Amino acid sequence: GPVAAVVRELRCICLNTTPRGVHPKNIVNLQVIAPGPQCSKVEVVASLKDGKEVCLDPEAPLIMKIIKKYLNSGNKKN
Amino acid sequence: GPVAAVVRELRCICLNTTPRGVHPKNIVNLQVIAPGPQCSKVEVVASLKDGKEVCLDPEAPLIMKIIKKYLNSGNKKN
Repeated sequence: GPVAAVVRELRCICLNTTPRGVHPKNIVNLQVIAPGPQCSKVEVVASLKDGKEVCLDPEAPLIMKIIKKYLNSGNKKN
Repeated sequence: GPVAAVVRELRCICLNTTPRGVHPKNIVNLQVIAPGPQCSKVEVVASLKDGKEVCLDPEAPLIMKIIKKYLNSGNKKN
């Protein structure tokens, strides 16, 4: 498909999650990976502007804020 | 990084979005791609169990439901 598939690691991608310090505006891509055979917990991987990838705590309220910010940014443009 | 970076297409990935018919349980991975130089609108790409990738309407309430479902599924396990 047009988007490179996430490499199906045979284990969890996120060993630890980054402390809260990630600023939404530095995130270019957010991946929410459902629990599956490879990993029993949901994982949230953020790709940053500097090319780094960090794991975010799925339960951190920050995630919902980031996602809402993105999804609403679509609205403002209409 | 551990996750294959999204291929930086020089245009929007999603030309159209899939009608509502995508069932959350068929989604293995959800990518929320921020607006950027390559594309001025936010894009939500869902990878499905059958390997297909579909674009979802960022403003569809379905997206928030899917994301909440994932992020909360983490809670149930704690």
